[in-house]
Amino acid sequence: VTRSVDSAQSLIERVRAGHVPSIARMISRIESGSDGVVEQVAELYRLGGDARIVGITGPPGAGKSTLLTSLVRELRARNKTVGIIAIDPSSPFSGGSILGDRIRMGELYHDPDVYIRSMATRGALGGLTRATTDAVAVLDAAGKDVVLVETVGVGQDEVDIVRACHTTVVVSAPGMGDDVQAVKAGILEIADIHVVNKADRPDANRTIRELKTMLKDAGELSTGGWKIPVLATVAEDGKGVDELVDALERHYDHLVASGEMEERERTMAAHRLKTIIQNVALDRIEDPSIGPDFDDAVEDVRLRKRAPFTVALDLLEGSV
Amino acid sequence: VTRSVDSAQSLIERVRAGHVPSIARMISRIESGSDGVVEQVAELYRLGGDARIVGITGPPGAGKSTLLTSLVRELRARNKTVGIIAIDPSSPFSGGSILGDRIRMGELYHDPDVYIRSMATRGALGGLTRATTDAVAVLDAAGKDVVLVETVGVGQDEVDIVRACHTTVVVSAPGMGDDVQAVKAGILEIADIHVVNKADRPDANRTIRELKTMLKDAGELSTGGWKIPVLATVAEDGKGVDELVDALERHYDHLVASGEMEERERTMAAHRLKTIIQNVALDRIEDPSIGPDFDDAVEDVRLRKRAPFTVALDLLEGSV
Repeated sequence: VTRSVDSAQSLIERVRAGHVPSIARMISRIESGSDGVVEQVAELYRLGGDARIVGITGPPGAGKSTLLTSLVRELRARNKTVGIIAIDPSSPFSGGSILGDRIRMGELYHDPDVYIRSMATRGALGGLTRATTDAVAVLDAAGKDVVLVETVGVGQDEVDIVRACHTTVVVSAPGMGDDVQAVKAGILEIADIHVVNKADRPDANRTIRELKTMLKDAGELSTGGWKIPVLATVAEDGKGVDELVDALERHYDHLVASGEMEERERTMAAHRLKTIIQNVALDRIEDPSIGPDFDDAVEDVRLRKRAPFTVALDLLEGSV
Repeated sequence: VTRSVDSAQSLIERVRAGHVPSIARMISRIESGSDGVVEQVAELYRLGGDARIVGITGPPGAGKSTLLTSLVRELRARNKTVGIIAIDPSSPFSGGSILGDRIRMGELYHDPDVYIRSMATRGALGGLTRATTDAVAVLDAAGKDVVLVETVGVGQDEVDIVRACHTTVVVSAPGMGDDVQAVKAGILEIADIHVVNKADRPDANRTIRELKTMLKDAGELSTGGWKIPVLATVAEDGKGVDELVDALERHYDHLVASGEMEERERTMAAHRLKTIIQNVALDRIEDPSIGPDFDDAVEDVRLRKRAPFTVALDLLEGSV
């Protein structure tokens, strides 16, 4: 027992020191729900709190991956250490996609101050999962200055991202058609910073103008009186990425100065609690060693013998 | 009390008879969590079970809305009554989008045997919400032959849709760029039927070929030994929609004949139970009248005084 406590403690110490294989091992332990991982994450959570958590989202086709690569390069040029959690199934960061992107990112993969981890949401209920927020806590405790969380933003995940980050960046691109415009309108209010990528395209100005008009109609401000900027980037050659990093720093300063930071971190804490509660409630009702049998309950519902709500209450009460 | 029981009972009877304003009222009661709605949904759930639940998903820009309009028209031509739950924020069905679509759909809105309802997922944790599955149960009990559930398929929602439907259709289109191809690969395995819309475009055959190759590499079969077809449609003029409805019927027959139907409905029942349990667990911990104070708990987590997991357990145990 002493040895295992020692080794758990030294894993935490190595994570704290930014030791890459230990960070990787810690996140794998989270993903597989290893013994004692709950206590380790609790300890890491207690030690963290200094990282700036930035969510990056947007529809597929906006060039988000290329932008992310340029963004990390600029953050590194400013001596920031960076952690990336990629939960976008279309992103090369999360193991999908395109050879060109992987080659572009090659330099990042060899930089010890950049840690990239892809996480599967597939199969999980509840958008950003407990494993995702736990992994963010690990990178925070590991001393990363900035933790980037990447999702595809046209579903549930982009609502959750706002609840797990200090700053949310929404990336779009010109000429993606009316459907995508409509999606953009749907995610208008979640952005602290809008980026129109591929801004060298002829129709870029129109897109920027439209976004600005939509924002003006919506009141232009995100929570805490922040005026949401619309930035133009050409991620391919890094144009505008400098301004994006400036905007990220301005937003962070604004959060602190306005007192909005406290409110955001309250939202983040509440979201974290809710995610854990959902997870634990589901884990328990499926555990055959506690409470009524889940398979029997499912069968009653399938055969319409009992109402789902009644069965759910029985399961929930029997499982605590 | 007698009067209110009578009126609750007669609302259920009117829903059963397919009375449109009563269906609308019932779903509004679900959305606002009105008194007694749990018992009404339980009763409607018990009475239902005959509708074919079909999920339709795909990235924005695939022409999903136009295809859905043509699909409903074809189902009506075959004398099927149809219910639609639209939870795609970019869809004209859910109140967004484009004038042309609304005009095309005008005929559907005036057909008493087509019921269209958009539902917001915004702000909800957990993808397809309890309200969504309850609304499906209402349309099922109201005697709709087919209930279509529409989502945008590049995030969490499209995973959930498989767990709430008998058949899942994934719509894509040629020429949407490499990013979208990658997304398509990500949602490859959730489809029972693939549709390549806008098949009159010159690069359509390439897209169809690619999809078929991807499916072949993946083993080509969905659960229960069904060979996943790749259909070509031009939703604008209804081309291929006939074959899509044929494929839907073939898939339903296959589910019944292979015994896979029982497994699917078991998955649907389990998903339903889990959604309710998540909802109830969250409702309870936020209810100030039961258990520890949620705001105090959030504050402890924000200030990193206590670990989120420990706090979550306290909340969960105190709330039952």
